[in-house]
Amino acid sequence: MNMSHPSVHPVEAPPVTDGGAVNVPVPRVRMKDIQGMPGTPGGLFLRLCQFLFAVVALSIMTSTSDFVSVTAFCYLVAAVALQSLWSLLLAIVDVYAILVQRCLRNARIISFFTIGDGITSTLTFAAACASAGITVLIGTDLDECGQNHCARFETATAMAFLSWVSVSPSFLLNFWSLASH
Amino acid sequence: MNMSHPSVHPVEAPPVTDGGAVNVPVPRVRMKDIQGMPGTPGGLFLRLCQFLFAVVALSIMTSTSDFVSVTAFCYLVAAVALQSLWSLLLAIVDVYAILVQRCLRNARIISFFTIGDGITSTLTFAAACASAGITVLIGTDLDECGQNHCARFETATAMAFLSWVSVSPSFLLNFWSLASH
Repeated sequence: MNMSHPSVHPVEAPPVTDGGAVNVPVPRVRMKDIQGMPGTPGGLFLRLCQFLFAVVALSIMTSTSDFVSVTAFCYLVAAVALQSLWSLLLAIVDVYAILVQRCLRNARIISFFTIGDGITSTLTFAAACASAGITVLIGTDLDECGQNHCARFETATAMAFLSWVSVSPSFLLNFWSLASH
Repeated sequence: MNMSHPSVHPVEAPPVTDGGAVNVPVPRVRMKDIQGMPGTPGGLFLRLCQFLFAVVALSIMTSTSDFVSVTAFCYLVAAVALQSLWSLLLAIVDVYAILVQRCLRNARIISFFTIGDGITSTLTFAAACASAGITVLIGTDLDECGQNHCARFETATAMAFLSWVSVSPSFLLNFWSLASH
């Protein structure tokens, strides 16, 4: 079974009509053309955004010395590390697909991407929310920013949220593509 | 335009074949039969679970006197209140659909349900994660359960997570149904 098929010289299939309205060809939107899906430049852009935001969140959080004393911050580090690895892997796949003009529209591949995106985005979002809760607790409720790295915690949390925001379209587009197969 | 159509006496459409393999009728899985979608007993069960878990989380969290001093706990109360209202509303719609045997398979209705489920589930999950982060901070990192209602905070957080777990299938099924239309 072919896992993917080359599309170097794509042949446009004639529109299927049932005898009527032949003179008015309706332009059909092809799933392939939606930017943001695997193997498209938009998809590669989303992956790079996810990767960059996750790496920035990881770097800022690990640059604070006392993040290990809070469980939620350790969890954030683990989640964005996983997110950055996953996004980097998929970015490489996208670069390959774009370079060799291969179409990644196989149900198994898209299922794998959808499940991976679902898991990593849920973990990243959960970590960002937990960190946000604690950042607000330290900064607003307890007002103890003097002895904590509030600015760095907030920046790392915001970057994790941005990473989640850029994973969500990938997940939703893949899920949509899977359902409309 | 009809927003829904009655299905008291559903007529099974003959399977569409293109001339071949007429003797081997393949049973087609109808989207309508998937339990958990709007208008099915499974969907009603999911809505009641969401509602009950959200109401229990709301009750337990508001029964603690000091939840107002932590922003994340206030946010949890607001999120599960919204979740319980939304789920109750959709449970009433499901009961109506089941009683009058109406089919809720309209693209606009399902879009509305999908967006509502997406928003409420994201808010509930975010609130549950933020509360979990603070509960772990109080209970494990700072070890201050003696002067806090740790057990109640943990129970309310767990109920909010369970509410999110029961909203997710509704969201995914609606989104799937929307995409496969």
